[in-house]
This record gives sequence, C-alpha cells and structure tokens, in this order.
Amino acid sequence: MLKMKIKTFPDLFEKGLRYAYDCEQKLVKKGLPEMIENCTSAELRQALDQHLRETHEQVSRLERVFSICGLEAKTEDNDLIDELYTAAKHMISDTEDGALLRDAALIVNGNLVEHYEIAVYGSLEAFARHLGYPEAASLLLQTLNEEKAADAKLTQIAETSINPKATQERRAA
Amino acid sequence: MLKMKIKTFPDLFEKGLRYAYDCEQKLVKKGLPEMIENCTSAELRQALDQHLRETHEQVSRLERVFSICGLEAKTEDNDLIDELYTAAKHMISDTEDGALLRDAALIVNGNLVEHYEIAVYGSLEAFARHLGYPEAASLLLQTLNEEKAADAKLTQIAETSINPKATQERRAA
Repeated sequence: MLKMKIKTFPDLFEKGLRYAYDCEQKLVKKGLPEMIENCTSAELRQALDQHLRETHEQVSRLERVFSICGLEAKTEDNDLIDELYTAAKHMISDTEDGALLRDAALIVNGNLVEHYEIAVYGSLEAFARHLGYPEAASLLLQTLNEEKAADAKLTQIAETSINPKATQERRAA
Repeated sequence: MLKMKIKTFPDLFEKGLRYAYDCEQKLVKKGLPEMIENCTSAELRQALDQHLRETHEQVSRLERVFSICGLEAKTEDNDLIDELYTAAKHMISDTEDGALLRDAALIVNGNLVEHYEIAVYGSLEAFARHLGYPEAASLLLQTLNEEKAADAKLTQIAETSINPKATQERRAA
C-alpha cells in the first residue's frame, strides 16, 4: 500500500489519526479478544473486557474527530500494532495454558500497547489543539485518559495479584 | 535467530532484559545519532544529545543488572525498536530538510520510543523486585525515571517551541 506522505503539519496530524484508527480497529477485532480468551485470572479478564468496551467507543470517537477536522475516516496500516500483536501471539504460544506466567506476559504486552497509545494520543491531542480544533482535542484527551487508566489498572493487577503468584509458580516448580 | 523460550517467571524477566539491552544498543549506535543529525531545532538537538549520553549509561546499567541477577548480558533481537527506527527513517525521508515539521515528526517518534521504554522498564523493575533483586530493581527504576524525564522534555519542546512554529510553517506556505 502506498503510504500517505507528510508535507504539512495537518498531514502529520491526519497520518497519526489514521494510524490510531487502524490500531483501535485491530485491537477491537483481534488483539483484545485474543488476550481475553487466553488469560487465566478473572480479574485480568474483567479489566480487559472493560477496556474492549472502551475501545469500541474510542473507534467511534476517532470517527467524530475525523469529521470535526473535515477529514475522511481512513486507516493507515499500522506496522507497530501488528508487531505488538505478533509479540502477544508469541507470548501465548511460549507459555502454558492456565499459567499465571502467561497472564504476566500478557500484562507486559498490554502495558506496551497502552504506552504506545498514550504516546500516540498525547501527540494527537497536542496537534488538534495547535491546529485549532478544541473539540477534537477534548475527545482525544478523553481517550488518552482512558489509555492511562487502562495501563494503571494492568499494572495494579500485576503488582497485587499476578506477579507475586507467578513467582510462586516458579518456586513450586 | 532462535528466540529464547519462556518457561518460568525468571525467563520472562531475562527475555525482557535482553530486549531492553538490544533496544538501548540500537539507540546508541544509530537511532539517537540519526535523530540528532536530522533535527533542526538547537533545543531539540541539545535534549537528544543529553539523552544519548544517558543512554550510554543505561547500557552499562543493564550490564550491572544482568550481573547482579547472575545472568549473561545478551541481546535478543528487538523487532519493535527496529520498527520504530524504520518509522523514524520514513519521517525523515517524508519531510523536508531544515523544516520544523521534521522536528515535530521526530518528536512524535521520540515519544513513541520513550513510552516503549517506560513500559519495558516498568515491567522489569517490578519483576526484579518480585524476584528478590532489590539492587537490580533500583537500577531499573533509575533508568525508568530517566526515560520518563526524556519523554516529558520532548513533549515540553514540542509544546513550547516546535508545534506552534510548525503550524505557522503551514500558514506561511
């Protein structure tokens, strides 16, 4: 696919929106459902389920952002999220079914995805503001805050529940 | 290359350390020098120079972590950082030499790299703590804090200097 060229600051913004749109759609269609299907801890599954619902809303929110900014909602193939998806698949195939070690590995991957999105939405929110689209900036900020909360939730589950038990799996082995 | 399998929680930790070690080495050898060579703003160049010096120290710090944990310092080929490097190269070839738009694009990429590292070191620091290596955890926390500071510095430069001027490049065009 011929990728969009960046000639102006609005191009950079539009390209970022397209990457984000591709990212969220891939997370909705396969990334999050596969993580949910493969995790062991009920607490982790519940957090991922909630984030999947939020991510559906984030897709619609991006469509509103495209519309506010007079842009067509298009995706641009996001190689980074594909790479993170491949890494998650390896995590799953490398670890045993039902092991908390797999949950720990999935949380590592989840934190990577969330931080990727935090960086993306941080830039997009700033660009929308500088380009004079305050309503779009406000929507992007809302998603940014959801990604930060999802990252913090994953870390909290790892710290309080998964990591201490996964370490014990090793000791019991 | 045959990638290391994850059978235990310490394996997950070791694999993460190897990815981080590969990441930092690639940033020292080519990622950061190429960003420095291609940026326009003196303020951005200064911040990247400082982060390059820190990154050299982060490589040595990781070697101390491997040693403390009784592990051999090895890299594991980090496809994600390769992908981020490719994205930065595209940003450079897609934008004009000397344009602040290129700086804005390089900062987007820099924020992505820093957030990738924040997620990686966040997991590694927690793993070191849970595995009973407090000294290693402390070193990893030091790097984590440097990555957070580098990310904040890039964002500050974008917000106060690059983005407002890059938007004006568009208006002048």
